Amino acid sequence: MDILNSLQEHFLFRAFTPQQMQQACKDARWVSVARNQYLFSQGDDASYFYFLKEGQVKLVLLSPGGDEKILEIINPGEIFGEAMMFIQDCHYPVAAQAMRGCRLIQIDNANFLRVLHQSNEACISLLQDMSVRLYDFVHEIYALTLSDAACRVAGYLLAQNSKRGAVFELDVPKVALASRLSVKPETFSRIIKQLSSNDLIAVNNKQITILDEPNLRTLTESCTRQEACQQHSLSLNA
Amino acid sequence: MDILNSLQEHFLFRAFTPQQMQQACKDARWVSVARNQYLFSQGDDASYFYFLKEGQVKLVLLSPGGDEKILEIINPGEIFGEAMMFIQDCHYPVAAQAMRGCRLIQIDNANFLRVLHQSNEACISLLQDMSVRLYDFVHEIYALTLSDAACRVAGYLLAQNSKRGAVFELDVPKVALASRLSVKPETFSRIIKQLSSNDLIAVNNKQITILDEPNLRTLTESCTRQEACQQHSLSLNA
Repeated sequence: MDILNSLQEHFLFRAFTPQQMQQACKDARWVSVARNQYLFSQGDDASYFYFLKEGQVKLVLLSPGGDEKILEIINPGEIFGEAMMFIQDCHYPVAAQAMRGCRLIQIDNANFLRVLHQSNEACISLLQDMSVRLYDFVHEIYALTLSDAACRVAGYLLAQNSKRGAVFELDVPKVALASRLSVKPETFSRIIKQLSSNDLIAVNNKQITILDEPNLRTLTESCTRQEACQQHSLSLNA
Repeated sequence: MDILNSLQEHFLFRAFTPQQMQQACKDARWVSVARNQYLFSQGDDASYFYFLKEGQVKLVLLSPGGDEKILEIINPGEIFGEAMMFIQDCHYPVAAQAMRGCRLIQIDNANFLRVLHQSNEACISLLQDMSVRLYDFVHEIYALTLSDAACRVAGYLLAQNSKRGAVFELDVPKVALASRLSVKPETFSRIIKQLSSNDLIAVNNKQITILDEPNLRTLTESCTRQEACQQHSLSLNA
C-alpha cells in the first residue's frame, strides 16, 4: 500500500505540496504490530509519530506500581505522538500498545518538522489539531475532578451517540473502556445496568441503543462530585 | 505602560516583525481587574487571549453544583486563553478569576490569527507552547488517576524547588493550592505537616524549605493509587 496516499487521508498532510509530502515522508515506513505489542514505552525517546491505518491502539499511563490508565484510544485514520515533536529531547509521556493487530505508518519527527518550517498552512492545521487535544484534556480533567463515575460513563455514551448515531457497538473491551474512563470494571458494568434498567439505554451484547438522550444529558450535567452518590442513586433508581 | 514593549517579554511575540506586531496588537488594550473579579466565565465566547503583567489569575473549572477545581494558576509574564483561538465559535472551557488585583493586556484572537498566517516562525513558537501545555495536562491526568494526594503535594513542592530553589514562599493561598492539586484543604495541611515531621521539608509560615529532595522524589515515584494509603502512612511515619 502506498504511504503517501494513505497519509493524505489525514488533514495534517493535506496542506503539503507533492514535493513537501515527499520530503516529510522520505524515511516513513510501514510498521505492523501484533495484539498487546508495544509500539513505544513510557519514557522512550520521542523521535516518531504514527498514523494508524488498521487496528486499534491505546495510549496508556503506567504508574511505577504497574497500575494502568488509558488516556486515549486511537482508531484508524488518526495520528498520535505528534504533539511531542516540538519539545526538545522529549520522551513519550505515555506508552502505545496495540489492542488488536495493527498496521501503521511511522513518520520521522525531524523530516516532518523541516517541512513544517516551510508550510504555514500545515502549521495552522497542526495548531488546530493540538487545540482540540488541549480542549479534550481540559474536559478530561473536569470529568476526573468534578464529576463522578456515572457521569463519565454517560458522557462517553453521549459522545458516541453524537459521533456514530443512536445505535452503536462498543468496539472497545469493557475493561479498557473502564480504564479510559477511570472507573473500576465492576462499577462500569453496574452503571451500564442501571442506565439500562432506567430505560436511558438498551443493551444487547456489545450493541448500545440510546433511548433517552435528553435525560442522559441531564444526568451528566447535574452531577457534581460531592452530591454524586446521592443524586445518582436517586436519579438512576427513581 | 507600552503594550508592544510589554508583550515582547513573551516568546510568542518575539518572532513578529515590528509591522506584524502592530497588526497583531492593533486592538489590544490594558485591562485591570480587582481581586475575585472574573475576566471571563466558563462558556463565554473565546474571542481574546490575555497576557498577565501584574497580579495572579486562576483558571477554574466549575461544576453545575458550584464545585470548583483550579486548573492552572497564571503568574506575571504568562499568557492564557490562546489555545482556544483555533477552534471556531469556541467558548472558554474554564473561567478566569483574579486572585489579587491584576493588570493584563487583552489581545484579539482575530488580529493575532491574521498575523500568524504570515509568520511561520510564530506558528512554530505557538506549537512549542501548546506542546508543553499538552505535556503538562498529560502529567496532570497521570497525577489525578495514578497517584494519590500526598504524591501530588510532593510533586508540586518538587516543581517549585526546581523552578525557584530549595527555599521559597507559598505565594498561593492554601485553599487555592489544594484545589489546584485536587486535594481537600484539610488533607493538604495534614500532608504538609507529615512531610515536615519526617524532615523532608521545613515550614515557617508561608516559607517552605526543601530539606531532603531525594526522598521527596522517591515518595512521588513510588506511590500508586492502590497502594497509596498504606505506603504513605509507612513512608511518612517511618
